[in-house]
Amino acid sequence: MIEINERDRAVFEAGIKLGALYHQFVGTPISTETIDDLSRAMEQSVILQPYVRSVSVMIDREMVEKRENPEFRYCELEGRMLHVNLQILYKNTIAYAELAYDEGLDYPMMSIKKIEEM
Amino acid sequence: MIEINERDRAVFEAGIKLGALYHQFVGTPISTETIDDLSRAMEQSVILQPYVRSVSVMIDREMVEKRENPEFRYCELEGRMLHVNLQILYKNTIAYAELAYDEGLDYPMMSIKKIEEM
Amino acid sequence: MIEINERDRAVFEAGIKLGALYHQFVGTPISTETIDDLSRAMEQSVILQPYVRSVSVMIDREMVEKRENPEFRYCELEGRMLHVNLQILYKNTIAYAELAYDEGLDYPMMSIKKIEEM
Amino acid sequence: MIEINERDRAVFEAGIKLGALYHQFVGTPISTETIDDLSRAMEQSVILQPYVRSVSVMIDREMVEKRENPEFRYCELEGRMLHVNLQILYKNTIAYAELAYDEGLDYPMMSIKKIEEM
Repeated sequence: MIEINERDRAVFEAGIKLGALYHQFVGTPISTETIDDLSRAMEQSVILQPYVRSVSVMIDREMVEKRENPEFRYCELEGRMLHVNLQILYKNTIAYAELAYDEGLDYPMMSIKKIEEM
Repeated sequence: MIEINERDRAVFEAGIKLGALYHQFVGTPISTETIDDLSRAMEQSVILQPYVRSVSVMIDREMVEKRENPEFRYCELEGRMLHVNLQILYKNTIAYAELAYDEGLDYPMMSIKKIEEM
Repeated sequence: MIEINERDRAVFEAGIKLGALYHQFVGTPISTETIDDLSRAMEQSVILQPYVRSVSVMIDREMVEKRENPEFRYCELEGRMLHVNLQILYKNTIAYAELAYDEGLDYPMMSIKKIEEM
Repeated sequence: MIEINERDRAVFEAGIKLGALYHQFVGTPISTETIDDLSRAMEQSVILQPYVRSVSVMIDREMVEKRENPEFRYCELEGRMLHVNLQILYKNTIAYAELAYDEGLDYPMMSIKKIEEM
């Protein structure tokens, strides 16, 4: 029997936040002109949640531009447009996690990049 | 057989926008401090869409305050917190629609308030 | 000043339902094997709502197949995969609405197809 | 510098799945009659994703009943209605995770219950 430790908790919380962000906001109508305000609102929705030390949400401007419907001049937020860096602080452990589009796999990949014990 | 006219189109588009807004954003983590940025991002997601003449999204501050979890200091956006005014312009017809919490029915009610032909 | 009538209400409710369905479910993980159960759950979420007379949700099997990630064997529900037929009955008026992918515009188009007064 | 190991990956993936499930489906119209099909569709959306060994989604029937709007006879899926058990298998490590409503905190709590190395 393995005890759940601080590190498990930090890493688990990181996963929760990325999964939540993704499925809350994918599908939102977006254009190059609303990228800044939408990414800011997304960051704020994360930073409110427990154990979040910092988060940055970047939305790929080129991809948005390319996907904008020529007739209606907007598109929808897709997972592959997102680049998110997240730090979770649980007690003395920091988990650094990322959501980034993996071109090779054609997949919005979430990963743990680093773990620090302070 | 009844022909679909401008007025039908304006009213239909109003319904689409309110239904979409509601189900895109309900569930988003929110606190009294993020109300302004979230409502702005919500407005922008609507204004991008076809035939929208104007939209205002208000989130009920008192309700958010009351719902904030005492331990974690945030809550989730609920339909009953929303007050939305929307104008759709389709050709020469303006449809004014609203989403507002109906206390009697305990229901976030969407309605057409007015139709104008210019 | 124009009075809101039964027909306006029927058409408005049709818009609400399609907008809601779309933004509730787009982003859901899906594969060809889960199409049937997901479309059934989507239909049920619509049929519960006020004034819905009937609804059918079809998800384009070919598109799902094509979009399935080769490594992970699933994809996400996209608007363009959806074909929805909806009937709203408001008092004595039936509004027939549709969501269907418009290839020419590359857009998931919602439209009122027919209105009947009984 | 700490190496990311199998256990971190298993636990992280568990977090992703719970966060995603929650924010994809909260807000869905539901009644006591659609609980079974909706929870089945939710399970299927999880089981498709990488490293999921098993998942069960239970929706609290009593809570749904209590929340059903008396006029319209349905409500919306809320986080507190959900009880989810999830197993992630990453290489030789199994992470057991749960989403369950914590009455004391009035919060839908996600947690790691157990970790096994095979």
